[in-house]
Amino acid sequence: MMELCILGCHSATPKASLNPTSQVLEVNGEVFLIDCGEGTQVQLRRNRIRFSRIKHIFISHLHGDHCFGLIGLISTFGLLNRQPNLNIYGPKGIENFIKHQLALTKTHLSYQLIFHELESEEPKKILETEKVCVETIPLQHRIYTNGFLFKEKPGDRQLLLDVLQELSIDKAYYKSIVKGKDVELASGEVIKNEELTLPPKKTLSYAFCSDTAFKPDIVEQIQGVDVLYHEATFLEQHEDLAYKTMHSTARQAGIIAQKAKVGELILGHFSARYRDTEDFKKESETVFDSVKLASSGKKFTYHLA
Amino acid sequence: MMELCILGCHSATPKASLNPTSQVLEVNGEVFLIDCGEGTQVQLRRNRIRFSRIKHIFISHLHGDHCFGLIGLISTFGLLNRQPNLNIYGPKGIENFIKHQLALTKTHLSYQLIFHELESEEPKKILETEKVCVETIPLQHRIYTNGFLFKEKPGDRQLLLDVLQELSIDKAYYKSIVKGKDVELASGEVIKNEELTLPPKKTLSYAFCSDTAFKPDIVEQIQGVDVLYHEATFLEQHEDLAYKTMHSTARQAGIIAQKAKVGELILGHFSARYRDTEDFKKESETVFDSVKLASSGKKFTYHLA
Repeated sequence: MMELCILGCHSATPKASLNPTSQVLEVNGEVFLIDCGEGTQVQLRRNRIRFSRIKHIFISHLHGDHCFGLIGLISTFGLLNRQPNLNIYGPKGIENFIKHQLALTKTHLSYQLIFHELESEEPKKILETEKVCVETIPLQHRIYTNGFLFKEKPGDRQLLLDVLQELSIDKAYYKSIVKGKDVELASGEVIKNEELTLPPKKTLSYAFCSDTAFKPDIVEQIQGVDVLYHEATFLEQHEDLAYKTMHSTARQAGIIAQKAKVGELILGHFSARYRDTEDFKKESETVFDSVKLASSGKKFTYHLA
Repeated sequence: MMELCILGCHSATPKASLNPTSQVLEVNGEVFLIDCGEGTQVQLRRNRIRFSRIKHIFISHLHGDHCFGLIGLISTFGLLNRQPNLNIYGPKGIENFIKHQLALTKTHLSYQLIFHELESEEPKKILETEKVCVETIPLQHRIYTNGFLFKEKPGDRQLLLDVLQELSIDKAYYKSIVKGKDVELASGEVIKNEELTLPPKKTLSYAFCSDTAFKPDIVEQIQGVDVLYHEATFLEQHEDLAYKTMHSTARQAGIIAQKAKVGELILGHFSARYRDTEDFKKESETVFDSVKLASSGKKFTYHLA
């Protein structure tokens, strides 16, 4: 099961009701915070996401609308006497950025911050947990920026219980069978694992791509992901502005989705200049079928058969 | 006319519905922002306070719940292509605090930031505009902290129009008469200013005192102010915690108000541990009569006869 909760998805200029970029991805019970614009801690509260579940925070780039909420969140964790380590993945400079603020505000934390500074221009695996792999997706923006690709790790092979029972195979062997081992019967006969199991269930994947200019060379890396969140700051009528500010249009996001044959495209990072975000969906749908719009507080849930 | 708009008045630990300290004081059309916790820019929008009216920001101390919203506000002003200078008054270190973040996020502002760093332990006049004087109120907290005293400047003397007309004094003289000048009639007779005018209207004053331990020696400086905002983080039952964390109880705030003979006391900076802020009012009223409670979005308006 994978669930994405949008805490904020608007670009920099604030309105009373709009929040800058931040989102929570939950994959099989593991919780990841992606970007942390101002007000993220309040948005986490509003969406009832327990602070203690967050162990990894990924920051795409050091523009304010993606990181100005980080110091407040880190401080609050300290006030709440958090104990577990907190891992922060972000551009080189992020450690200094946070530590300088902690020092000046004389904030002493109850827990350990572990920074993982990024500076590679190539995709790089940055985290592997029990259930998930995370790698960077190098993007193209006015400053060094990464997207993040979350891939559920393949689980165990699926036992064919009726076959196992028919062969009277002891349950004690199941643990090794799900890992792919063959079984030797008392008779000496070896039963191939493929006869006892089905392959592991299909896994889910999520690619977060914000902020970025139109960058078709990410298509290879995100080929076939189940869900792609791609920024669409502008509509096509402002393609010149998108080019100048190194953002994308809704149509360009659609092209990436279509070329990468993703399962679903979620658009976000809308400029405040547009009244109706539905226009982003319409524009994107001219090139790709399955388009959804992000909005603060919206949840997207994905299951596999 | 003086109007105080509370943007936030809770102490550090956030809840979904509570905002950290920030408030806007308007005195005769001049707008001052006092403290700037995370989310202040959104609170300004919600309360329909135009960004362009803010020319002076006062930061009491560099704890996150009083200053983590400053970088976001400054950046947004830049995105909106602000032109007028912005003055920031706060503890020594605040310039570096902000400039370091601007540099790391590669933010270039369209306007000039002018920092006024404070380090004196004595009250000090830090701003004089056409209509208002502002001085620091040194407070006692875990880090260097100032309150701020806003005093409307005395206006012109008030013309006694019937007397002026009876004496056929030309209107050309009024401009000097309101400033206190005597008038020499054509006959050579000198009319004393006191016979032609009343003293200037009474002026309004506002003292902001947060965060601070119980500090009775501020009483002299704030004697007789019309409005005192004083922190009351704790109730008396947690006086030990107040002492330890260098905060005040509601009762202690009441004692300051009573000793200083202020017109009205507004309590704020409530700890999130208490359910009902009415308890702060009740406790404070055991020592002082006129007590009000701050809350996000609440406005207090003051007129003089």
